[in-house]
Amino acid sequence: MSPKESLQQHIAKTAALTDGQFDYFFSHFKPQSFRKGQTVISAGDKVDCEYFVISGCLKAFYINDEIKMYILQFAMPTWWTSDYDALYNQTTATINIDCITDVEVLSLSNSDREKLCSEFHQIEHFFRWRTNKGYIASQKRLLSLMNNNTKKRYEELLALYPQLYNLVPKHLIAAYLGVSRETLSRLYNS
Amino acid sequence: MSPKESLQQHIAKTAALTDGQFDYFFSHFKPQSFRKGQTVISAGDKVDCEYFVISGCLKAFYINDEIKMYILQFAMPTWWTSDYDALYNQTTATINIDCITDVEVLSLSNSDREKLCSEFHQIEHFFRWRTNKGYIASQKRLLSLMNNNTKKRYEELLALYPQLYNLVPKHLIAAYLGVSRETLSRLYNS
Repeated sequence: MSPKESLQQHIAKTAALTDGQFDYFFSHFKPQSFRKGQTVISAGDKVDCEYFVISGCLKAFYINDEIKMYILQFAMPTWWTSDYDALYNQTTATINIDCITDVEVLSLSNSDREKLCSEFHQIEHFFRWRTNKGYIASQKRLLSLMNNNTKKRYEELLALYPQLYNLVPKHLIAAYLGVSRETLSRLYNS
Repeated sequence: MSPKESLQQHIAKTAALTDGQFDYFFSHFKPQSFRKGQTVISAGDKVDCEYFVISGCLKAFYINDEIKMYILQFAMPTWWTSDYDALYNQTTATINIDCITDVEVLSLSNSDREKLCSEFHQIEHFFRWRTNKGYIASQKRLLSLMNNNTKKRYEELLALYPQLYNLVPKHLIAAYLGVSRETLSRLYNS
């Protein structure tokens, strides 16, 4: 499937656009490729775009004062990712986003998203729905962090990302759960 | 200010509605009052409504397997609150919401919100903006939980809710930060 078809299929679930409207919508996206390990957003950067993932897997992460890495999100095909606080509020990034594998995305600027939303009610509807999904995922991530039961959090993670175990190194899964690699191995084998 | 004026002022910042359109919008809201300590949503409940706070303060919280309470959100006037996962996905609540003080809210059902969004582009725009703000607040809460620096998290909390210290008992602020009451006292006096 081409990037254009992938985006069209994604948006068609929520918004009814004619082919002409979708072509216009798509003309605002820019295809970008990144190599495994490459950085997309660094803490401190100005953030202008959000990214719709076509292929590969990215991680959004935070490094605290003890230089411990926490993973906020794994972004896989048909997921969107950015530092949304920095993007919407035009501040600098507090999180980092980089590529676990080679990655293809379609990027959309903040100003183009706002323009498209004001031009088409259906596009505004799509982005409201998309943000709702992100908001709910973020609330679930919060609850997962507050839940002291590692086994349950691990099961929730696999339910959210069923294909994760084949895509992502185990030490990154441990960094998402906030446990050691050894604890993860015990869960994996139990 | 009446509840109607409070909601009108809140929405006017983002959406341009005529007085007639606002009257129609407002006709879908139901005023509700709760007493201090009363429960609005319990884990396990079916969730049909979201709440726009007119007066008072609520807390949204989660109790984990060790019966430890974590506070996700303090909801004060002009904030919205609900269990949005349960609300949008028509599942049962995983969190609890109750009243720290006597509280007045305007409640809006899930089906009415969706109807209003499809009827008026400006209302869809308002709810996209509102959900964006919730999403960003949720991401900040995630980063706050991941940040091991208690003093910084405490300063972030006071920046987010400047009036909190006068409204909320200290043990609840400690439960938001995930620290003991004693640690909080040291920060407060430092």
